[in-house]
Amino acid sequence: MRRLEVLAVEGMGEVAPGDVLAASIVDAVGREGPALADGDVVVVTQKVVSKAEGRLVELDPHDAHARRHLVEEQSLRVLRVRDELLITETPHGFVCANAGIDLSNVASGRAALLPLDADRSARRIRDGLRARLGIEVGVVVSDTFGRPWRRGSTDVAIGCAGVAAVVDLRGTPDGLGRPLQVTEVAVADELASAAELVMGKASGVPVAVVRGVDPAWLRPSSVAAEVVRPPGENLFW
Amino acid sequence: MRRLEVLAVEGMGEVAPGDVLAASIVDAVGREGPALADGDVVVVTQKVVSKAEGRLVELDPHDAHARRHLVEEQSLRVLRVRDELLITETPHGFVCANAGIDLSNVASGRAALLPLDADRSARRIRDGLRARLGIEVGVVVSDTFGRPWRRGSTDVAIGCAGVAAVVDLRGTPDGLGRPLQVTEVAVADELASAAELVMGKASGVPVAVVRGVDPAWLRPSSVAAEVVRPPGENLFW
Repeated sequence: MRRLEVLAVEGMGEVAPGDVLAASIVDAVGREGPALADGDVVVVTQKVVSKAEGRLVELDPHDAHARRHLVEEQSLRVLRVRDELLITETPHGFVCANAGIDLSNVASGRAALLPLDADRSARRIRDGLRARLGIEVGVVVSDTFGRPWRRGSTDVAIGCAGVAAVVDLRGTPDGLGRPLQVTEVAVADELASAAELVMGKASGVPVAVVRGVDPAWLRPSSVAAEVVRPPGENLFW
Repeated sequence: MRRLEVLAVEGMGEVAPGDVLAASIVDAVGREGPALADGDVVVVTQKVVSKAEGRLVELDPHDAHARRHLVEEQSLRVLRVRDELLITETPHGFVCANAGIDLSNVASGRAALLPLDADRSARRIRDGLRARLGIEVGVVVSDTFGRPWRRGSTDVAIGCAGVAAVVDLRGTPDGLGRPLQVTEVAVADELASAAELVMGKASGVPVAVVRGVDPAWLRPSSVAAEVVRPPGENLFW
């Protein structure tokens, strides 16, 4: 029977610029488990990646003008505006609210920008876990995005390493032996969503482990290459 | 430590119009486990819900004209067209490819339409499981949707019962004691995505169980009321 486990990694403590996340994860896991193993996928929230990488800027949370300026500065283009909310495209090709800038859980007066390259962030964490524990894991850097036609946010992957962003089932026969129609599954996004279910927004758990993923998904990959649609493919601007 | 399990329910066999899904699930679980328990969330794919409810129409898969006519007939409006792909809004308020009509895994020459009211479908399954097993579970009816700016599909909730579609964390303090900014989490969508990770597209597993969800999420809810944005809230048409 196929079975997954999703485990919160507690006890990470506060993350500061310059921290090595792989080391923090190994410490937290060593204190409170679950022990990491080959084939696990480690999901790390953007918030702690941005903090560790020093992607913090000063911002008065009550200064709407400064906030808007920062969002525009961190965007390639603004797609929609409603009140305080800007939907923008970031230089990474992500379309999200306020250029992905995060004010929650950041010490008052500072905002966290997206990592410059979250695929690279994921690779660094993966390499660090291999160096420290001698294991091969997949890593997903997750962030919380809204959706255009559905209320509520879900967590998605903004970077990954060692685990497929998208699994292409084209040509795989369906249960009746005919070719499948829906074919490309964004498993890194689904892993990010599964992880969010044990993290919660308020509980301060920035890392989760997904155990039991299909070993075929554990391969080199990147969100930039596999998930971000090239401009010509986008039907909604 | 917070921990979830996601378990595939195998051995469901083919579903036919008129089948009582709660009975099929109880049979499959009885043969191959996992035993269902209070507080579980049972995720059921749209495909078997539509089949059980007889939402099947004849369609020659090679007749592009008939296919397009069917998609338009099942839509309130067409938002975008590219080649064979139509992005439409369904009468339920879902924005998805081809009005959510499913050709894969449907016996050749027939297409599966969306359930008329997947929240009601979910309630029926939940009531049937309570009647047969004496347990209270949440039920999510899932479907596979694409996303406008990201490649690959993810599974989302098109109906739910007994489990929150959206959890509102507004006013909950973050880890540093300040109010949270990102506040509404679409947990039913995240549960659908987590379930998809054990179902696969080709393996013919139409049901999964998510065990260990926050008990506070187990309450009356519906996708129609909590997830579908009213037209005035939509920024993208």
